[in-house]
Amino acid sequence: MKLNIAVLPGDGAGPEVTAQAVKVLKAIAMEFNHVFNFTEGLIGATAINQTGNPLPEETLDLCENADAVLFGAIGNTSYDLDPNAKIRPEQGLLGLRKSLGLYTNIRPVIAYEELLNKSSLKKKQIKDTNILIYRELTGGIYFGEKLLSDDGNKASDICEYNRFEIERIAHLAFKAAQSRKRKLALVDKANVLESSRLWRRVVQELAPQYPDVTVDYLFIDNAAMELIINPRQFDVILTENMFGDILSEEASVIVGSIGLLASASIGEKHAMFEPIHGAYTKGANKGIANPIASILSAAMLLEHFGLDDEAALVREGVDKSIKLHITTPDLNTKYDHITTTKVGDFIEDFINNPDETNLN
Amino acid sequence: MKLNIAVLPGDGAGPEVTAQAVKVLKAIAMEFNHVFNFTEGLIGATAINQTGNPLPEETLDLCENADAVLFGAIGNTSYDLDPNAKIRPEQGLLGLRKSLGLYTNIRPVIAYEELLNKSSLKKKQIKDTNILIYRELTGGIYFGEKLLSDDGNKASDICEYNRFEIERIAHLAFKAAQSRKRKLALVDKANVLESSRLWRRVVQELAPQYPDVTVDYLFIDNAAMELIINPRQFDVILTENMFGDILSEEASVIVGSIGLLASASIGEKHAMFEPIHGAYTKGANKGIANPIASILSAAMLLEHFGLDDEAALVREGVDKSIKLHITTPDLNTKYDHITTTKVGDFIEDFINNPDETNLN
Ligand SMILES: CC(C)[C@H](C(=O)O)[C@@H](O)C(=O)O
Ligand SMILES: CC(C)[C@H](C(=O)O)[C@@H](O)C(=O)O
Repeated sequence: MKLNIAVLPGDGAGPEVTAQAVKVLKAIAMEFNHVFNFTEGLIGATAINQTGNPLPEETLDLCENADAVLFGAIGNTSYDLDPNAKIRPEQGLLGLRKSLGLYTNIRPVIAYEELLNKSSLKKKQIKDTNILIYRELTGGIYFGEKLLSDDGNKASDICEYNRFEIERIAHLAFKAAQSRKRKLALVDKANVLESSRLWRRVVQELAPQYPDVTVDYLFIDNAAMELIINPRQFDVILTENMFGDILSEEASVIVGSIGLLASASIGEKHAMFEPIHGAYTKGANKGIANPIASILSAAMLLEHFGLDDEAALVREGVDKSIKLHITTPDLNTKYDHITTTKVGDFIEDFINNPDETNLN
Repeated sequence: MKLNIAVLPGDGAGPEVTAQAVKVLKAIAMEFNHVFNFTEGLIGATAINQTGNPLPEETLDLCENADAVLFGAIGNTSYDLDPNAKIRPEQGLLGLRKSLGLYTNIRPVIAYEELLNKSSLKKKQIKDTNILIYRELTGGIYFGEKLLSDDGNKASDICEYNRFEIERIAHLAFKAAQSRKRKLALVDKANVLESSRLWRRVVQELAPQYPDVTVDYLFIDNAAMELIINPRQFDVILTENMFGDILSEEASVIVGSIGLLASASIGEKHAMFEPIHGAYTKGANKGIANPIASILSAAMLLEHFGLDDEAALVREGVDKSIKLHITTPDLNTKYDHITTTKVGDFIEDFINNPDETNLN
């Protein structure tokens, strides 16, 4: 298969971790005789620094013409602490999601047997957790009109949803549930929000089309608690943009490190693959950022194109690195000095030579 | 002291738990020679059933003329599952918060030594956690304009904040931090929301007035993770209405049961005290609802009026009930059949006779 992949390393530790994912994809291409072409583009704070624009025209062109986008991370503390900045790194990511129509963000939360003791949660609580979060990604309060009064004393954001925006992702979530444990949990705040009531109404209306799927309805405050108390109750979680942002980052505590969570952002025409972690500015350029989220995002990319054996090999490599403690310090208490690059190298070696790779 | 207390038991298990708090307050009045008058009012689904209105005029009058309001719980599954209902129980609670101007909701999250093993989190992670959440309660997306298009295909909610709404609660949060560990964490989503940027700007502007307080800024997604990974990093958390709702219910996992979390809702003229849990419809009328959140809310009521010795005695009674396992099934694995009423009776007995109370 031939794939043109746009690579957007972005900010902070983004470039380091993305480099490992590219390394892994190159090894896969070699091993399976695919042709993957990688072209880099600027985005985020890095793009602002170099072009004044968090999402330069060329980057958008690149992504629109690529078969898939591999995204690193975005954000920078100096912008975070400057609420007056009019141009912000995140506009790059949000602009890209919107322009490419990536309305469905899929975030798997899977507890690794070997990492159960790394979690803040008790082992027996999280064992066998396997959740798929379907987060709506191009609507809601992220994209509704934002206003700041002229005197700067009043600010507002609109959370708006249209029925079709809910329907299209809900169908995907129902279908995902059908191929899993046939449970869908809608998370909203329908006891307070009109937009949440639209979500609930639409999901209730679609449910009869999926009679084999059991639907639960949870309020976001309750869901934030249940996710920790009893994560195993969940199979597929469907939710709007902001609640999905919160729940998916919260869910990282189950897995033991946010450096493990990958995601796929899918639209009708385009697809982007991104770790759910941020730029991790304070860990950048130290070789300590965990590349696994980025590498697993690459695995999701492969799966998106039906390259299941290829993806399985990547996942095996990741499993093996975890089993042998070839992991960055967020997970590793056994060995020192296992760097971002070293983890990438290990998984690359494994792909080249699945039967022989060990700690080297 | 003479206090007129409006009692709003509300829905589900609200009446059961509130009855225990009233019992405890009566014991305190007796012991310390206070005069507490209790008058009940209707609210929520119960009020809709009886009057058609979730917040009847008489209830509002009652609360406006009371020195304090003791609130039970609100909500009903049949409304939760009916997104088309125009009249909803929650309108009672939200209407009351707004009418009484209760803009500051204070939610303490304190890990009980004896309950550390009840939490889903590992003991060493949560030991000594002591957080005060300052949640804005009368603004934001809860109260902004809500629209549903005529064809029912589009719905929206506005999240709006004015500078003064942020300033008044921020001052209170800063002051609370000064009397504690001098750490304030603002939780927002300033990388995306205009309203969050106003929060961040205002807090940054006020910070120099509190030079002894260290201020941290966290995005809500990150905070939802950090609260679980490392709750001890937090002292006072300040946040807007919706994020506060989510974080405070999530925080219940630290304490071991949502049935333990009390809150005070304070305005310029009025004050209301409410457990943070909901109506717990499926546990209602079974004697299994934990009354401690309601009883601790009564303790916060006493503190609000400077009755610190009285509050301390209530807290001692709660501590003792926990130590002796006189607790409802959410916490109790030692004894069966410790009902809601039995817990209330125990704490009442303790107040009457602090030196002699034991399991009877
Ligand atoms: C960087 C930020 C804008 C982004 C979001 O809020 O969507 C991130 O937190 C994420 O989850 O992908
Ligand atoms: C019942 C509901 C409207 C309420 C809220 O969302 O504020 C509750 O969850 C709370 O936290 O007090």
